[in-house]
Amino acid sequence: LDYQHVQVPFEITLWIMLASLAKIGFHLYNKLPSVVPESCLLIFVGLIMGGIIYGLNDKSPPVMDSDIFFLYLLPPIVLDAGYFMPSRPFFENIGTILLYAVVGTIWNVFGIGFSLYGICQVKAFHLQDVSLLHNLLFGSLIAAVDPVAVLAVFEEIHVNERLHILVFGESLLNDAVTVVLYKLFRSFCEMPTIKSVDVFAGVGKFFVVGLGGVLVGLAFGMTAAFTTRFTKDIRVIEPLFVFLYSYLSYLTAEMFHLSGIVAIIACAMGMKRYVEANISLKSHTTVKYFMKMWSSVSDTLIFIFLGVSTIGENHEWNWPYICFTVIFCLIWRALGVLVLTFFVNRFHVNTITSKDQFIIAYGGLRGAICFSLVFLLPDFHRKKLFIAATTVVILFTVFVQGMTIRPLVDLLAVKRKRESAPTVGEQIHIRFLDHLLAGIEDISGHWGQYYWKDKLEYFNSKYLQKILLREYDQPKSSIVLLYEKLERKHAIELAEAGQLGHAPSHPSLLRSGFLCSNDRTVITSKKLEDALNPDVLENIQEILARNLYRIRRTGPAYNRHTLPGETEPVAHAKEILILRHKSL
Amino acid sequence: LDYQHVQVPFEITLWIMLASLAKIGFHLYNKLPSVVPESCLLIFVGLIMGGIIYGLNDKSPPVMDSDIFFLYLLPPIVLDAGYFMPSRPFFENIGTILLYAVVGTIWNVFGIGFSLYGICQVKAFHLQDVSLLHNLLFGSLIAAVDPVAVLAVFEEIHVNERLHILVFGESLLNDAVTVVLYKLFRSFCEMPTIKSVDVFAGVGKFFVVGLGGVLVGLAFGMTAAFTTRFTKDIRVIEPLFVFLYSYLSYLTAEMFHLSGIVAIIACAMGMKRYVEANISLKSHTTVKYFMKMWSSVSDTLIFIFLGVSTIGENHEWNWPYICFTVIFCLIWRALGVLVLTFFVNRFHVNTITSKDQFIIAYGGLRGAICFSLVFLLPDFHRKKLFIAATTVVILFTVFVQGMTIRPLVDLLAVKRKRESAPTVGEQIHIRFLDHLLAGIEDISGHWGQYYWKDKLEYFNSKYLQKILLREYDQPKSSIVLLYEKLERKHAIELAEAGQLGHAPSHPSLLRSGFLCSNDRTVITSKKLEDALNPDVLENIQEILARNLYRIRRTGPAYNRHTLPGETEPVAHAKEILILRHKSL
Repeated sequence: LDYQHVQVPFEITLWIMLASLAKIGFHLYNKLPSVVPESCLLIFVGLIMGGIIYGLNDKSPPVMDSDIFFLYLLPPIVLDAGYFMPSRPFFENIGTILLYAVVGTIWNVFGIGFSLYGICQVKAFHLQDVSLLHNLLFGSLIAAVDPVAVLAVFEEIHVNERLHILVFGESLLNDAVTVVLYKLFRSFCEMPTIKSVDVFAGVGKFFVVGLGGVLVGLAFGMTAAFTTRFTKDIRVIEPLFVFLYSYLSYLTAEMFHLSGIVAIIACAMGMKRYVEANISLKSHTTVKYFMKMWSSVSDTLIFIFLGVSTIGENHEWNWPYICFTVIFCLIWRALGVLVLTFFVNRFHVNTITSKDQFIIAYGGLRGAICFSLVFLLPDFHRKKLFIAATTVVILFTVFVQGMTIRPLVDLLAVKRKRESAPTVGEQIHIRFLDHLLAGIEDISGHWGQYYWKDKLEYFNSKYLQKILLREYDQPKSSIVLLYEKLERKHAIELAEAGQLGHAPSHPSLLRSGFLCSNDRTVITSKKLEDALNPDVLENIQEILARNLYRIRRTGPAYNRHTLPGETEPVAHAKEILILRHKSL
Repeated sequence: LDYQHVQVPFEITLWIMLASLAKIGFHLYNKLPSVVPESCLLIFVGLIMGGIIYGLNDKSPPVMDSDIFFLYLLPPIVLDAGYFMPSRPFFENIGTILLYAVVGTIWNVFGIGFSLYGICQVKAFHLQDVSLLHNLLFGSLIAAVDPVAVLAVFEEIHVNERLHILVFGESLLNDAVTVVLYKLFRSFCEMPTIKSVDVFAGVGKFFVVGLGGVLVGLAFGMTAAFTTRFTKDIRVIEPLFVFLYSYLSYLTAEMFHLSGIVAIIACAMGMKRYVEANISLKSHTTVKYFMKMWSSVSDTLIFIFLGVSTIGENHEWNWPYICFTVIFCLIWRALGVLVLTFFVNRFHVNTITSKDQFIIAYGGLRGAICFSLVFLLPDFHRKKLFIAATTVVILFTVFVQGMTIRPLVDLLAVKRKRESAPTVGEQIHIRFLDHLLAGIEDISGHWGQYYWKDKLEYFNSKYLQKILLREYDQPKSSIVLLYEKLERKHAIELAEAGQLGHAPSHPSLLRSGFLCSNDRTVITSKKLEDALNPDVLENIQEILARNLYRIRRTGPAYNRHTLPGETEPVAHAKEILILRHKSL
């Protein structure tokens, strides 16, 4: 027996196996996951395992290594989140998200830090040795909402898309603020005196860390898109580039002390549309599937490790400090959301309702990022107290808030995600309004989001697509693109359901009628597009109305466990087939 | 800048990126890969990189770590080889393969060992200090044909299936022999005296190492199949189990000093059919794609590292020893193949031609396994000589033999892989003959391969399928299964080609005629199968003849860079559509 030799890969494989089996186990009982969020169950499994290890060895079980967390477990989850991010709601609410992420997090850090410092002044609590700076440092790590925890809970409760993106977007983008404040206070703690120039340098760092992350991410994303131009002859390594480049963007950002999370999100969102156009359909399925799989496993491992690491003797239980931490976390988050939303609502027509505000405040879950940061703290005499407080806050938010948020959403009748996809009419109107508003903004000289979106789209089709796409066609009317996209999607769904119907009927053929119905299927769509170009917009309404019975959602909401278009394709396909046969 | 922090994952990612980009680079020039095998090009890249590192640092570049090779780079390649192994030719030739792998390898080890010991006795060569045991140890590591090198060359020259499986199967299964002999001689080298009991123990170990590997592999394979029974609710982690269990089988076998290669092949071949039936189509695509991708990258990295490690000051150049090693490797392999094939041909009707024998002997390439084994040798004063000799043998076989084998195959007009797939008639006849021969063997009391195959199939459908498959139907006539499989494959290919034709016409519907053509598409195939059961075999010939125009190959030959069914599906789909429309 030579265990030493294979120990490292063997134990890693076993941990992953345990995580996967735990996941299967939960889903065997259908009722369990609908009551208790999976994250709670996994932490529970971790607690039990930690207890067993503690009982057998009589020493603290191993703590999740912060390096392993930041270098190996976090990137897959963030990559998945960035790649499947619904971009339209994200960019529509980018201002509000940034406000919550930047101002809101700073508010929380200083709020929690100063009020805990106040608590420390009470002599009865024996906490007078905890300085203001240490409290602020603690505030900086405990204030940030955790994307992993938020995702795990919010993907199961299906709130409306805007509310979801507000909480989720905030949890992702606050990473830049957390990185800066945490490192700032940590270095302040070690400095003998703090000069005012250091404070200003810290403020300047915000922009460097955040924008630097975006730039690094976009640079890698564009390189990835460019690389996939040349993979036509060896399709099999295409998926690799998506993973390699996004991971490199994360590592590079971390290397330069920028925000890795922001970088990987920028990389994923930037490369997505170009890579998808370049790689084969099978490669794309593999990319999507593997991303989901990887993030799912990482996520499971994180929660199990969180449970395991909780057990042990790393904690110093000072009850007042711990209880007040939980209370202040709740209070300052609620206050912050109220105040910020007040300003947001003043400048927006489409306001955030008070129910939504409550869910935003209540959904501020803490998770593994806080936990890893608190273990990264330099050794000082109160570190164990901070660890204990962090653990309690995480367990409180994940268990109490995570388990009660679903009943609360039901109780308050918070607006849910719409079940049905937008109709063709709606889609056409949305696009039309986008163009119209871009024009109005242009004329009125107001450079709003529509103006910028229009400019970006122009830049994209004029320059970027020519460089990054392998087969670059002349830009087509966006409505034709939409139609093509929908038809392609429909064909794939039909095929996957095992129900092969008639070939997708191409508009120009139906219109000009120069082909008999049997030959139709053989003609490639390439020729059709050539024949389509001159008078594209004529009769497009009629074609859309005749060929599209029901459109599948184009911007599917984010869910870590399913791939878009996986649910009940058979039923859809049947329905479409019946309708199509009737119409023919 | 904090490079230390991200160094390990950053450098790994960069190496993989380099390998992928090198692969893309070669395929940009279409002519290059058709003349020079990719493995040579990659070693060349490695040599250049090693030279650069050597020139810049003025010290030997890092040598490929044997642990990294055996634990991380080799398993993906072997898994891929095992999973996509064409099982029919493999089991039909299993006797010959085992003969080559076991007896042939032992023959080579002792032949090379003893004749090199003879060379060492020549005083002019200054080699008298190399003992017989050391020569045998060297023989044991240099004798084994390398699966990675063989695959890299043979997948490009497209020889006939039997020849391919003989060389490739041998290179995989000789691992057990290599492991035993290498470890045996290594421990003999360290022992003061060798007792005869040790020699007998060594012989006994053959069976333990080989059969143990098979058992470990099958155990993990069955567990994997059983696990995928329960993944219906979380499809997204299905692919994970295929990788986790096969990797665990490899690690477990290595842990117990069994043959990891044999274990992972047994695991992959054992689980394949059950896992495929349990997991979703998308999961299966992901599994196949990722396996190809991973093995492709591993393979690239191995050859690059091989090149890099060649440069440096690890070598002791004793020309006579090195030259005679190359010569003896060639001679003993040629002799071994001749002698063994003589015996094989006496017991087989379907003999191995002399051209095939030449290619088998000439295709005995050495590769990274030898290289890793020689670095794993304990330090002694002639280790550098062995390293130099191994390096030369590898470079000679990969460059000279690898580059000349394709012209030789053309020159000798070796029988190639048949381009067209077997027709329905052929397939039916093969199946019929299988049944017939099984019956004849049963009656005559001769327990040959057909008898065992029949028994295994019975055991499979009677017990294994009930335990391992999620949706277990009553066993159907194998001809119906074949037809269903072909129809499903055809539908997938049609869909992937983007050419949706009519729904697959189901036999019972065509026959009984109780459905009008429009409704046909909506009925699910489940119902059809129910209706089919009572009189399955009637008219099956007629149905097959009417519905199957041309069958795609069912047992695709192995190729590491493409997935089966990827080549020109559009042309096939068109042809089928035209034929089908005519017939309707």
